[in-house]
Amino acid sequence: MPKDNVIKMEHGAGGEPMQALIRDLILNNIISRSAGLVGLDDLDDGATINITGILENKNSNVNSNDSGNCNNPGEIVITTDSHVITPAFFPDSNIGRLAVSGTVNDLAVMGAEPLALTCAMIVPEGFELSSFEKIVRSMSEAAEEVDVPIITGDTKTVERNGLDSIIINTTGIGIANEVIRDCGLCTGDKIILTGTIGDHGISLLAHREGFELTTDLVSDVAPLWNMLKDVVQIRTIEGKPAISAMKDPTRGGLAGTLNEMAQKSGTGISIEQKDLPIKEAVSSACEMLGIDPLEVANEGKAVICVKAENAEEVLSIIREHEYGKDAAIIGEATEENLGKVLMRTPIGSMRYVDPPTGDLIPRIC
Amino acid sequence: MPKDNVIKMEHGAGGEPMQALIRDLILNNIISRSAGLVGLDDLDDGATINITGILENKNSNVNSNDSGNCNNPGEIVITTDSHVITPAFFPDSNIGRLAVSGTVNDLAVMGAEPLALTCAMIVPEGFELSSFEKIVRSMSEAAEEVDVPIITGDTKTVERNGLDSIIINTTGIGIANEVIRDCGLCTGDKIILTGTIGDHGISLLAHREGFELTTDLVSDVAPLWNMLKDVVQIRTIEGKPAISAMKDPTRGGLAGTLNEMAQKSGTGISIEQKDLPIKEAVSSACEMLGIDPLEVANEGKAVICVKAENAEEVLSIIREHEYGKDAAIIGEATEENLGKVLMRTPIGSMRYVDPPTGDLIPRIC
Repeated sequence: MPKDNVIKMEHGAGGEPMQALIRDLILNNIISRSAGLVGLDDLDDGATINITGILENKNSNVNSNDSGNCNNPGEIVITTDSHVITPAFFPDSNIGRLAVSGTVNDLAVMGAEPLALTCAMIVPEGFELSSFEKIVRSMSEAAEEVDVPIITGDTKTVERNGLDSIIINTTGIGIANEVIRDCGLCTGDKIILTGTIGDHGISLLAHREGFELTTDLVSDVAPLWNMLKDVVQIRTIEGKPAISAMKDPTRGGLAGTLNEMAQKSGTGISIEQKDLPIKEAVSSACEMLGIDPLEVANEGKAVICVKAENAEEVLSIIREHEYGKDAAIIGEATEENLGKVLMRTPIGSMRYVDPPTGDLIPRIC
Repeated sequence: MPKDNVIKMEHGAGGEPMQALIRDLILNNIISRSAGLVGLDDLDDGATINITGILENKNSNVNSNDSGNCNNPGEIVITTDSHVITPAFFPDSNIGRLAVSGTVNDLAVMGAEPLALTCAMIVPEGFELSSFEKIVRSMSEAAEEVDVPIITGDTKTVERNGLDSIIINTTGIGIANEVIRDCGLCTGDKIILTGTIGDHGISLLAHREGFELTTDLVSDVAPLWNMLKDVVQIRTIEGKPAISAMKDPTRGGLAGTLNEMAQKSGTGISIEQKDLPIKEAVSSACEMLGIDPLEVANEGKAVICVKAENAEEVLSIIREHEYGKDAAIIGEATEENLGKVLMRTPIGSMRYVDPPTGDLIPRIC
């Protein structure tokens, strides 16, 4: 069979081949794809269910006027991720904390308070019970940090030769007063990155490949709702939401995230390389290995697009939090170069930051 | 390492080893496990989120008296399942229809109308795109049958040597006026089985192992909400819900399901073997292979426990539906043999129907 007729690794890497797979084989074949403001076609971090409409429908037989008192109960937000990572344990963390954090963050960047999580695990025969228990504990600890219960689950086992590591799906349900999209960026909005890039991918790669870094580097994996919950409420002087768009730069890294936001919003993005928070250990490892740190995945960071008038206020709130102490304004949305991301280098030249293509380097999720 | 310290296949088989794993290593290590009436500890088909409480809380700052008009908006029900099945295609169906049906049915047996589904797929490198597309289409068709959209998802790829088949997680969100539990069975309630047992497991086994059955037998995999939605509203003369408990007999088969319901409800269960709907092809294959058909998984059946006064009404509604034409009253809840299931054989003797132990035969999920 020609190689073009089968799944390739880059179909899961977050770049154009994945977008094509989703568009051609998923969206084209699923008839009903929406239950609210944000549906499958939006390819956002999650989707929404219009709970107002459902409640009105339910109440309409009783007294259609009463439903007015249920106004704006918020939108239910839902997100799902299946996590597969080798090794399951990495510096300072493991797949359990990663799964819970990833799902909480996908809710958080849509402006949603997490209400509950589900957890479905597939475990290969021979997997150590002590490792299994550590992973479950890490899930609980990450969930406790943002005060969200894990309310239902599923446990399956498979033969060892069918699977070489544990797979965890976490689905999160949240509620948002106002849903934040990844397509709401407007010209002039400032772009805040909540901390250093590449910590997760590079620490995992170093751990897996056994090379030494100059300093102790650990994954940044963390649930961000406590850090983000105050800023999602901030308003402009005109009473509009200060945050216009938000996304977590996981697969595809900051490069993938910024390009997606620029394309979906129909703006350009310009960033300053000198303002990018990055640890020395990460930049030197990337240089040595020929990896672009902008394409490396992060698991405890958010890209926040905010109205210019509120940028300093949002930044100072983020910096007060332990996960946001290295936050910085890294750039802004522009009228030029629509759908593109440009970066000014320290010597003043401009270069395009392209969306990642091909396989993930390193593969981290 | 001693074999006792690792995951074994039976940890995923739905029997006592799985219950022990969940109790000792999951429930013991997760601190927060509930967001409503039914939580993780209940080990039901799903869990619930108390949406009334959330809305009241959200509205309380505005006008705490108004929330009374939001009374009984219902309980949000959520369920998750990760599906791994070899082969991914089996007589008349595939893992896509199985995933959607399984999730819709877990909502349906809790009395919940499905509102939306999520879909997270992990696909091994080399998986045929044409097969992938067929699976997605089957998911859409099953979802269309019960008018539920698929609103968000996740697509990951893994190296072929790490996984030998596609894995699909589906999570379902529904809303129930009154949640139906698997523990509500009362003495005297009648037990309805909505159709023939063993079709899924035996047709899959025959297909996989390549043996011929006497007749064409196909999997029963189907989404049951259209069949169940009318009966969940039925009331007794006193105005109480007619259905006291409901469950779908998947992993562990009818034996596993009835034992779980008896144990959780604190009643006995007595069934009549002669009343059990079973196809000739299934009973003869089971006899030949030494398999108990009561332990074989079903993917399009429900066990409905109903107040005796409403049993015939519920049965006749179920039988009108294509998925329920072979439905039968198979027994009732008893005051004796609490937590146990007894079956009267055709020659009049009684035997205990024990919960399945050890590995699934055949492994079907």
